[in-house]
Amino acid sequence: MGEFELIRHFFAAAPCAQGGNGVALGIGDDCALLELPAGEQLAVSTDTLVAGVHFPAVCDPSLLGQRSLAVAASDLAAMGATAIGFTLALTLPEVSADWLQAYTQGLQRMAHRCRMSLIGGDTTRGPLSITVTVFGRVPAGQALRRDGARPGDLLCVGGNLGNAAGALPLVLGERQAPAEQAQALLAQYWSPMPQLTLGELLRGHATAALDVSDGLLADCGHIARASGVALEVNQHQVPVSTELEAFLGRDAAVHAALTGGDDYVLAFTIPAAQHQALQLPGFIHVHVIGRVLDGQGVTLRDRQGRDITPTQRGYQHFRETP
Amino acid sequence: MGEFELIRHFFAAAPCAQGGNGVALGIGDDCALLELPAGEQLAVSTDTLVAGVHFPAVCDPSLLGQRSLAVAASDLAAMGATAIGFTLALTLPEVSADWLQAYTQGLQRMAHRCRMSLIGGDTTRGPLSITVTVFGRVPAGQALRRDGARPGDLLCVGGNLGNAAGALPLVLGERQAPAEQAQALLAQYWSPMPQLTLGELLRGHATAALDVSDGLLADCGHIARASGVALEVNQHQVPVSTELEAFLGRDAAVHAALTGGDDYVLAFTIPAAQHQALQLPGFIHVHVIGRVLDGQGVTLRDRQGRDITPTQRGYQHFRETP
Repeated sequence: MGEFELIRHFFAAAPCAQGGNGVALGIGDDCALLELPAGEQLAVSTDTLVAGVHFPAVCDPSLLGQRSLAVAASDLAAMGATAIGFTLALTLPEVSADWLQAYTQGLQRMAHRCRMSLIGGDTTRGPLSITVTVFGRVPAGQALRRDGARPGDLLCVGGNLGNAAGALPLVLGERQAPAEQAQALLAQYWSPMPQLTLGELLRGHATAALDVSDGLLADCGHIARASGVALEVNQHQVPVSTELEAFLGRDAAVHAALTGGDDYVLAFTIPAAQHQALQLPGFIHVHVIGRVLDGQGVTLRDRQGRDITPTQRGYQHFRETP
Repeated sequence: MGEFELIRHFFAAAPCAQGGNGVALGIGDDCALLELPAGEQLAVSTDTLVAGVHFPAVCDPSLLGQRSLAVAASDLAAMGATAIGFTLALTLPEVSADWLQAYTQGLQRMAHRCRMSLIGGDTTRGPLSITVTVFGRVPAGQALRRDGARPGDLLCVGGNLGNAAGALPLVLGERQAPAEQAQALLAQYWSPMPQLTLGELLRGHATAALDVSDGLLADCGHIARASGVALEVNQHQVPVSTELEAFLGRDAAVHAALTGGDDYVLAFTIPAAQHQALQLPGFIHVHVIGRVLDGQGVTLRDRQGRDITPTQRGYQHFRETP
């Protein structure tokens, strides 16, 4: 099967809206065409996943399909944007109809959950790698940026942290866990649900936001630096799942929650009054885990208020090289 | 140097407009934010270049920087869009400050020529691969699509074809050529100039357009299929450069022009009256090379009008696989 046939066959079945949800022209021409309602801005983000670096080279392509879109769509949630669509640049070492079918199914499942359409892309031969570029829309001036945190704001997260990091030894086949623990942790790794609803509800309330992808402390550092403030995290308030605690024990679970990446839960700062006013649906659990202060940097405190900040902050892809 | 420092250092110097040319928020947050004037649509396209497949693994990173943006921006030209900006997903086997500096310089040079800003991206570790997603704007309904060619239209191209294909043995170090031939051919390969001005001028005149990237005959096939028409190409009218003809001889030069990819010259269909009315600047040379007819498929004709259509049509990435 030639390249063009390949693309047509597998991605023709994808949910490529024509004329709906801001997509004026989808797959098949030199460019896709998007439309924006008056007074809205387009949010854009790009994420690459490389086999052997961001996921195991041998894995379930259906799960990979879910995850590759979810991690990119999470950046839209972090900006408070409403998801529209995405382009997919897929580099494959060889063409396998089975692989493509399973991958596309997973991709479609996540696209459906996020209400996004595949609007274009590129398919090339090479080492397995996936770059997804996502598009959303947000009323002008209401995007949740990283630079708006102010002293006095509360620091919050949108759910349990550390599950994806806890899942890693399971993903890599290095450890086993009881079925219910494995299921909860692996779900967070393979199909993190982008918090798009939470992001939209935070518009006009939160002062800064991002999605936790590098690890909570590292990501709090991004907000602190961009906003020119200090962030204080209370370790005992950082939420971890019962499954993670059962699997790793309390200390290691908390460590995973503080430094592990890939959870794609929102972290945000918000004035206390706005926090009170938030009306969230039952499936969203927001936890206050600290506060914003004058100063700079991130401080981790224990239940007694002692500074227990670790020195290592999150995963950096190129850490080892000079 | 950590990943974040790496990104900041090299891409902070890139031409990332803030607030200009439709870019409301550039690099540094979860998403970039774009704005569109009322009545305009956003054109989006994604292209991946993989080392060892789309360019030699060992090459001048500055030239690679130019080419990686040019091939993507050419899709904006093909839609008649005005370029705005791009995201860059760069996967590197290792961090080299020299490599990054040279790559960024080439990228900046092409961005400047195309009046585009770097608005975001991702840097990951892995086999060398580059995915560029480009953004442009176009008045609603005026984009140059592939499906508007009508019987009676002229078929035209925006310049010489085959230079990039002719350059391949030089790029791969398999052959040598006299300096002036080598210079002309290699320039087309490494820094094809996206025909953005031509694309904009064709809005409201051309009925269909694309950029020649798979080879002229294969790309004409895309227009024929999308528009539901037949295209006839007159081989003796297909323009080739004197350098290509001197390097390859007439027959091989014409073959390169018909089937070689990577030239990124526009091919378009246009009613004869609209063709007459085109007012083009002196640096753009449009050539009539055929016409649109009722029917389907692409026919190649010699000077005497005989059908000399070859069976092989353009390069397909996955041709060899079953």
